[in-house]
Amino acid sequence: MTIKPLADRVLIKMTEPEETTSNGIILPGAAKEKPQVAEVLAVGPGGVVDGNEVEMILKVGDKVIASKYAGTEVKVDGEECVLVRQSDVLAVVE
Amino acid sequence: MTIKPLADRVLIKMTEPEETTSNGIILPGAAKEKPQVAEVLAVGPGGVVDGNEVEMILKVGDKVIASKYAGTEVKVDGEECVLVRQSDVLAVVE
Amino acid sequence: MTIKPLADRVLIKMTEPEETTSNGIILPGAAKEKPQVAEVLAVGPGGVVDGNEVEMILKVGDKVIASKYAGTEVKVDGEECVLVRQSDVLAVVE
Amino acid sequence: MTIKPLADRVLIKMTEPEETTSNGIILPGAAKEKPQVAEVLAVGPGGVVDGNEVEMILKVGDKVIASKYAGTEVKVDGEECVLVRQSDVLAVVE
Amino acid sequence: MTIKPLADRVLIKMTEPEETTSNGIILPGAAKEKPQVAEVLAVGPGGVVDGNEVEMILKVGDKVIASKYAGTEVKVDGEECVLVRQSDVLAVVE
Amino acid sequence: MTIKPLADRVLIKMTEPEETTSNGIILPGAAKEKPQVAEVLAVGPGGVVDGNEVEMILKVGDKVIASKYAGTEVKVDGEECVLVRQSDVLAVVE
Amino acid sequence: MTIKPLADRVLIKMTEPEETTSNGIILPGAAKEKPQVAEVLAVGPGGVVDGNEVEMILKVGDKVIASKYAGTEVKVDGEECVLVRQSDVLAVVE
Repeated sequence: MTIKPLADRVLIKMTEPEETTSNGIILPGAAKEKPQVAEVLAVGPGGVVDGNEVEMILKVGDKVIASKYAGTEVKVDGEECVLVRQSDVLAVVE
Repeated sequence: MTIKPLADRVLIKMTEPEETTSNGIILPGAAKEKPQVAEVLAVGPGGVVDGNEVEMILKVGDKVIASKYAGTEVKVDGEECVLVRQSDVLAVVE
Repeated sequence: MTIKPLADRVLIKMTEPEETTSNGIILPGAAKEKPQVAEVLAVGPGGVVDGNEVEMILKVGDKVIASKYAGTEVKVDGEECVLVRQSDVLAVVE
Repeated sequence: MTIKPLADRVLIKMTEPEETTSNGIILPGAAKEKPQVAEVLAVGPGGVVDGNEVEMILKVGDKVIASKYAGTEVKVDGEECVLVRQSDVLAVVE
Repeated sequence: MTIKPLADRVLIKMTEPEETTSNGIILPGAAKEKPQVAEVLAVGPGGVVDGNEVEMILKVGDKVIASKYAGTEVKVDGEECVLVRQSDVLAVVE
Repeated sequence: MTIKPLADRVLIKMTEPEETTSNGIILPGAAKEKPQVAEVLAVGPGGVVDGNEVEMILKVGDKVIASKYAGTEVKVDGEECVLVRQSDVLAVVE
Repeated sequence: MTIKPLADRVLIKMTEPEETTSNGIILPGAAKEKPQVAEVLAVGPGGVVDGNEVEMILKVGDKVIASKYAGTEVKVDGEECVLVRQSDVLAVVE
């Protein structure tokens, strides 16, 4: 059973935030709007969204930062996932 | 008696959320914005919506995830259904 | 005395919601946003609305579902009617 | 002393709502958003409004239904009048 | 010292509302949104505003009705004036 | 150390409001939305803003009226300054 | 591990606000909307955002003023950073 995002949406899976490694990304756990590092599990086809052509640049396997408030939560195989618009993905982490 | 959605709307019927199967989709029952797996019962013709041409990609029988807050509830033959814009359907489940 | 809706508006007359017939449409009476089956009494000419060309597809006599919160109530010959934009009509019932 | 509405505005004068005639229009006096039958006293020239060309279709003498919440009240010769955009006029009454 | 409005703005000076003359304009003094008869003191050059070309049709000396809530108050030579967009001027009074 | 505004922004420095000179501009000190006479210290390059081409017409040294609620305050050399969009500058004072 | 901003976003790192140097920029510490001098660490590729082509003009190493309320906080190597749209960067400081 797989989830195929529509339009400009991607399915992302939260990853455990690294907290105090001196060389890693540390996310503020108590921040009101919690950004999160997530992995892209599925990518929609893009196309015309609100009259604008959207090209998908995210790929399955990308590590990304998205705002937790964007998107809609679903659980897939017991894992917390989010369906989010590509425009609400802020950055790719490498 | 049948319901024919207008413009970019689809009629969807809620399905019982699977809750703890290890391989299925588990929806958070207590979440404030409850996404739901639903079946598409009828699809509008698409066309120009707010000045943008909308092509319908959903088909009758598709299993979809939509946000419960989008759309308008109706009951058809005793079943809880929702009329929702295609753009508020987040993903197709296969 | 007749009412001629302007632009993309239609005049609709509420019909009594069928409540428990096993094969009919049952509308949730206590729902916060009450959708209603209504009959179209008059149809505006369409034309350019907010810069977009709107073609009227509803016809007098159509049975439709519209959200009660959309539109403006008027009483015509003692009957509760609503002037509503065609884009706020969700579906046609046949 | 005359009032010349600008752009897509019309000047309308409230008329006494007919209340119980069996064949007339009865407006709900206690409704939160009170629609009103009004007479058009003056019509603006139309033209480009928010980037869209607006053609005036209302004429002086038209009886119209407009939402009371739209527009701005002025008193002309002791009569309560309203300056309202043509797009906030819902219907013509004949 | 003179004020030159920018873009589609005009500088207007409130005039004393006439209150009970049988043939004049009477403004409701206690109305929540107080419209006012004002005189145009200065007119901006117009031009492109929010991507739309705006042509100024108001002239210095015009008597106009504008909503008091629109615009920004300034005092010029002790007189209460308002800088307001032309699109917030509702009508010209002659 | 200098501040170079981006896009359609200008840097303005508040000037002391003249209060009772009979021939000057008197700003209402207790008004909720305080307009202010300010001097333009720096002007951004203009260009495309939200899809619209913006041409800068303000020049360094211009005296302007802007709404205090628009823009973002910074202090430059101990002086209270504001970075504000040109479209939030209401008028030039000469 | 590096952060690559998407679309029109830049990654900026807050710098300590200079507080009382007579020739520097002094930011109001108690202001409700705290502007901040920050250094640009990474710049997105630009491209089409909401249907408008955005060209990135900021460069890595630029000192900028951005509103603290814009953007999303992340911590990189223990430093407080923000992912912010270029259009929410108000000025470059030199």
